[in-house]
Amino acid sequence: MNTLIRVVTFCGALSWAVVVGAEEFSPFQPLPPQPPIPADNALSDDKVQLGRQLYFDRRLSFNQGLSCNSCHDLMAGGADNRAAVSKGDVGRAAARSAPTLWNVAYQTVYFWDGRAASLEAALAEHLTSPTEMAMPDDKALVERLSGAYSDQFERVFKKQGEFNYQNITRALASYIRTLVTTGSRFDRYLQGDGSAIPMQAKQGYQRFIDVGCASCHFWVNLSGPVPGLAFQMGEGFYELFPNYPGTEEEGRYALAEDLGRYYITQDDKDRRMWRVPVLRNIALTAPYFHNGAVPTLDEAVRVMAITQLGVKLTAGEVEDIVEFLKTLSGEFPPQPLPRLP
Amino acid sequence: MNTLIRVVTFCGALSWAVVVGAEEFSPFQPLPPQPPIPADNALSDDKVQLGRQLYFDRRLSFNQGLSCNSCHDLMAGGADNRAAVSKGDVGRAAARSAPTLWNVAYQTVYFWDGRAASLEAALAEHLTSPTEMAMPDDKALVERLSGAYSDQFERVFKKQGEFNYQNITRALASYIRTLVTTGSRFDRYLQGDGSAIPMQAKQGYQRFIDVGCASCHFWVNLSGPVPGLAFQMGEGFYELFPNYPGTEEEGRYALAEDLGRYYITQDDKDRRMWRVPVLRNIALTAPYFHNGAVPTLDEAVRVMAITQLGVKLTAGEVEDIVEFLKTLSGEFPPQPLPRLP
Repeated sequence: MNTLIRVVTFCGALSWAVVVGAEEFSPFQPLPPQPPIPADNALSDDKVQLGRQLYFDRRLSFNQGLSCNSCHDLMAGGADNRAAVSKGDVGRAAARSAPTLWNVAYQTVYFWDGRAASLEAALAEHLTSPTEMAMPDDKALVERLSGAYSDQFERVFKKQGEFNYQNITRALASYIRTLVTTGSRFDRYLQGDGSAIPMQAKQGYQRFIDVGCASCHFWVNLSGPVPGLAFQMGEGFYELFPNYPGTEEEGRYALAEDLGRYYITQDDKDRRMWRVPVLRNIALTAPYFHNGAVPTLDEAVRVMAITQLGVKLTAGEVEDIVEFLKTLSGEFPPQPLPRLP
Repeated sequence: MNTLIRVVTFCGALSWAVVVGAEEFSPFQPLPPQPPIPADNALSDDKVQLGRQLYFDRRLSFNQGLSCNSCHDLMAGGADNRAAVSKGDVGRAAARSAPTLWNVAYQTVYFWDGRAASLEAALAEHLTSPTEMAMPDDKALVERLSGAYSDQFERVFKKQGEFNYQNITRALASYIRTLVTTGSRFDRYLQGDGSAIPMQAKQGYQRFIDVGCASCHFWVNLSGPVPGLAFQMGEGFYELFPNYPGTEEEGRYALAEDLGRYYITQDDKDRRMWRVPVLRNIALTAPYFHNGAVPTLDEAVRVMAITQLGVKLTAGEVEDIVEFLKTLSGEFPPQPLPRLP
């Protein structure tokens, strides 16, 4: 079954579930506490702890100016709220806005254009990207970290010679897979607590479905299929953005300049195709869109309705949807700052 | 009694204690778990929690590039191990090396030259210093943080209108006063556990006293008097550095170029006078000296003996003292990364 057919089937089932309110197949589900774990990178406590150290260690960047947490600030929502796009360790700005790392473990592809088929692959690219950590190559990073970390890698990976670039990405990925925000008000509502979200958010939720937002933003992460459910790792759930071209908003926020996935595949049908982004904790991760051009959530909702659905929402409808989106903020498990070796 | 007489008296008592091994007055003491708290900034749990948020919040710097933890990286020893001197948020390098913030609550003055009479005053200077957080003035910082923090300040300080620059420094200072590393091997040794430090460290400890290091590096922080003991807040314990001028080491590490406290007082007797630095956790806070010119602890010990005491230590003697200094590394209480408002 090809991707398109599977998505159509999946969305068909969703529409049906929305219409009849079938309990056995709802388009929204609470976030499961345990995300999928790849067979070649089993999760272990000591690997997570090692990954946590690496995550907060500035030695991972060329000038030692940035840690992962510099642009994916976990306790400030997990993204970079400071600027539309972040600057890397050597001062070069990234092309796109840094998304939150919370709940990325449920994605099937990584980066806005889906160019990485796994979290480990995305991390490998981050470490040497000149707009991010800017290490000249994998060898330079291994050399930089060797004195501090090599013994610990051999203990965690249980073999000599296991201190290498690939395992650095594996340890980091293991830590990032623990970054899951269950317990949002919306999840409690889905689990049967009718009072978990206020009336206005319930109206917003219904509006979110009726207007059509939910045709892309569904399932556990409100970003479409997750690994093993309709899609496998490496298969991305992409949408055209802007879908209604030529709007005033498109011009004002330069939404059509970046051709998205086209740069990866050079295939015309991928022009301006983008991975459907996660909506969990969206109220905490301004600014919005791939280019971080929109500073507030209500403006983001208004613009999305126009550019994606051809719908001009009233101010009240925008407010309702924003109230719903606020209920997607989950509980952030405490992150003890690790001792660095 | 003037400062000099008090120090002479104090040191006299210390020498005597060392000679006769008197238990009632030892020049070294375990770190008390509770540091002195100033009367005008009572410690409270919610003030500490607020200070912790501010400590990790990049919005405190002009370009939002730095938090306090960027240059005083708590879980990497509390200092900046990356460079001799740190660069501030607008790219200007500081004149001196960022010291660790662990255990600074026991100091009577702040900065290498002692120019701040309290931790709060030191923080006020940091926030607007162009080589540090680089905010243009106090008003700009208050305006920046207002939306995120003003309600919380009114709760913590229990009055309307309490969100202001001075209280930002008070909250930060309260958090920093909780950064205390008790439980070092040396402290356990002082508390009677003879096996807490190895033989070589014991030899190093004796050497540290015999050679004369302990004539400045004594008492709970191995940096001389603490508030209320011989000195009051604002009174600094300063020493001349280099004390034996014109050595090869002085030239190689440019130790005499910075005139230290003289820049503050313009008084000739303060030329190259420096606050005696804390030795706790010294093994974790390379590089060394006010200018961060010396990268390793053994070289720092060798150079100090030559420039301060006129003594050329053998390699073995240096090693012994370094082993002793390593026992000053304490237990680092876990620091949960705070949620940012």
